[in-house]
Amino acid sequence: MVSKKIAVLPGDGIGPEVCRQAVKVLEAVATRFGHRFEMQSYPMGACAIDATGNPLPDETLDACRAADAVLLGAIGDPKYDNDPSAKVRPEQGLLRLRKELGLFANIRPITAYDILLPHSPLKQDRIQGTDMVIFRELTGGIYFGAKGRTDDGEGAYDHCVYSRHEIRRIAHMAFQSAAGRRQRLTLVDKANVLETSRLWREEVREMAHQYPEVTVDYLLVDNAAMQMILNPKQFDVILTENMFGDIISDEASVIAGSMGLLPSASVGAEVALFEPIHGSYPQAKGKGIANPIATILSAAMLLEHLELNEEAALVREAVDEALNNGVLTKELNTTAPYTTEEVGNYIAFWI
Amino acid sequence: MVSKKIAVLPGDGIGPEVCRQAVKVLEAVATRFGHRFEMQSYPMGACAIDATGNPLPDETLDACRAADAVLLGAIGDPKYDNDPSAKVRPEQGLLRLRKELGLFANIRPITAYDILLPHSPLKQDRIQGTDMVIFRELTGGIYFGAKGRTDDGEGAYDHCVYSRHEIRRIAHMAFQSAAGRRQRLTLVDKANVLETSRLWREEVREMAHQYPEVTVDYLLVDNAAMQMILNPKQFDVILTENMFGDIISDEASVIAGSMGLLPSASVGAEVALFEPIHGSYPQAKGKGIANPIATILSAAMLLEHLELNEEAALVREAVDEALNNGVLTKELNTTAPYTTEEVGNYIAFWI
Ligand SMILES: CC(C)[C@H](C(=O)O)[C@@H](O)C(=O)O
Ligand SMILES: CC(C)[C@H](C(=O)O)[C@@H](O)C(=O)O
Repeated sequence: MVSKKIAVLPGDGIGPEVCRQAVKVLEAVATRFGHRFEMQSYPMGACAIDATGNPLPDETLDACRAADAVLLGAIGDPKYDNDPSAKVRPEQGLLRLRKELGLFANIRPITAYDILLPHSPLKQDRIQGTDMVIFRELTGGIYFGAKGRTDDGEGAYDHCVYSRHEIRRIAHMAFQSAAGRRQRLTLVDKANVLETSRLWREEVREMAHQYPEVTVDYLLVDNAAMQMILNPKQFDVILTENMFGDIISDEASVIAGSMGLLPSASVGAEVALFEPIHGSYPQAKGKGIANPIATILSAAMLLEHLELNEEAALVREAVDEALNNGVLTKELNTTAPYTTEEVGNYIAFWI
Repeated sequence: MVSKKIAVLPGDGIGPEVCRQAVKVLEAVATRFGHRFEMQSYPMGACAIDATGNPLPDETLDACRAADAVLLGAIGDPKYDNDPSAKVRPEQGLLRLRKELGLFANIRPITAYDILLPHSPLKQDRIQGTDMVIFRELTGGIYFGAKGRTDDGEGAYDHCVYSRHEIRRIAHMAFQSAAGRRQRLTLVDKANVLETSRLWREEVREMAHQYPEVTVDYLLVDNAAMQMILNPKQFDVILTENMFGDIISDEASVIAGSMGLLPSASVGAEVALFEPIHGSYPQAKGKGIANPIATILSAAMLLEHLELNEEAALVREAVDEALNNGVLTKELNTTAPYTTEEVGNYIAFWI
């Protein structure tokens, strides 16, 4: 029996409804195993701006720091999207949270579930058996470098910066992951153009000696964007910097047939954060059509992070059960769709 | 009857063999229409480094400047790829050529040929009818900003910079293209994170008033990487900055079923450059298996640029003829493949 504090950040759009189902599943796990999960919700994103003027209120940040793990729904609202000059934007909350919590590694497993192959835009034989993990650097690069306008107002700049230290700490994680999987690591970069990419290659090449069992490939990002579609099965562990990781991991998500299935973990220092890779999907808000599985699988990753492996395995089994029995929202089950809540109930009940 | 000077840069790997076929086709056009095309070859890329130590020798640059148009094969050699610290690399020649000739717009049409749908990794219904043009900014952004190592040797940086002027000149081209097509323009950026992207949005939003017939969408690059695969038919004209364009346009190329079919034009000042989008593919060098069609279609774009529209149309017809009759290299015709030269001969003969 364990006792854990989980800060829940439901966020915007469909965030709250998918989070509710994941919380329900975590509660079912707690009951079944006799654990105590103290789960409390805090505002972040557009809802936090509306309520406090700040996308990441101090209270929210403090609660995350004090928690054993953070579960996030999704953030973002169209009313901020089309105003690039807005001084306060929902994303700033997420970016600041990543930085403040030191979440330097975003981990995204991409799995092509057999039962969902018909839903993928890719031909079945290209993707069947795809099983990769993408390690995206999350607190460096062009996201966090100096940015601004030139003095004459005629230009803008964004600086991409990386240190050896930033590269090494996530590269070690990726190497270790590869060592425990199919022993292949692919570094995605643009070493023929960028100096930061050349630094990544240098470091990874040097570190490779420490992991002799891992075969390392180097792939230019433009080529990676093609290979991801042409032959995704070739990948085991992909390691890449922040901006390329943002693009490549979202691209990879289409393989699975639905974004609604893909979880992610952001780790680094003590507290880790778990969230579905999909966005806040405001058009679907409140309609009961949002797929809660990505958030529920994020909760499974959260359990693993807390070393509750048996519990995590049970959540995964319950999700498989829903997949195998077609207990799915309408993007995956057009003939007899289940609602967000029904999917959550089914999975929680199974536990 | 016209007389034109075309500088040919065959480059490395399969570059020379595919260029040879395109030159043959241009010669057939000249004969048929009584034109005079003065075509001379100059070294650039790895072959130029080997011969002169310089990936873009002065003689080559001067010849390009003096020409009416430039036809390029492909550059790059594996011996330079895995040495990120090499001071001289083939790509530098291409990047410098783009900059020196002021080729600020890279234009890539992406067409899903019906007959090649079975070769695409994407399901037929997703891509049939895809017809888009990507306008990629080519002489700015992170490619050409300051780059280097920090003084302590522990870090590296690449600066991304854009001016309003750089954005406007290519945006005008993209708007004009959209106006003459299906009247949709999609700006791909990362305006929720990057200041340069916010400048792009500001400019494009302002310019949109001048093109009231064109509907403008704004798409974040991570979402664009998904939409490109989920529903490529939604795109008409895509406009984007240099680095995102590199990734997104290569990703888009998989739709067509083969990179061996896709041409590109790089334009800006007087002289324009035409090249297939594929690379130097060194493993295929000298085997007669390289598909010359992308280079031949690049030659067709070159003819259009010289306002030889009837001539260009004839080249396209000849290519269609090859496609429809299966006169194709082995990646597209596995049962009875034709060689690079046979495909070139067929197309030239048809003209
Ligand atoms: C919301 C946005 C700032 C964020 C990012 O680009 O990192 C998102 O796209 C993601 O991938 O988590
Ligand atoms: C060779 C390389 C520098 C180049 C680029 O990144 O621009 C290539 O990938 C391209 O797209 O033409």
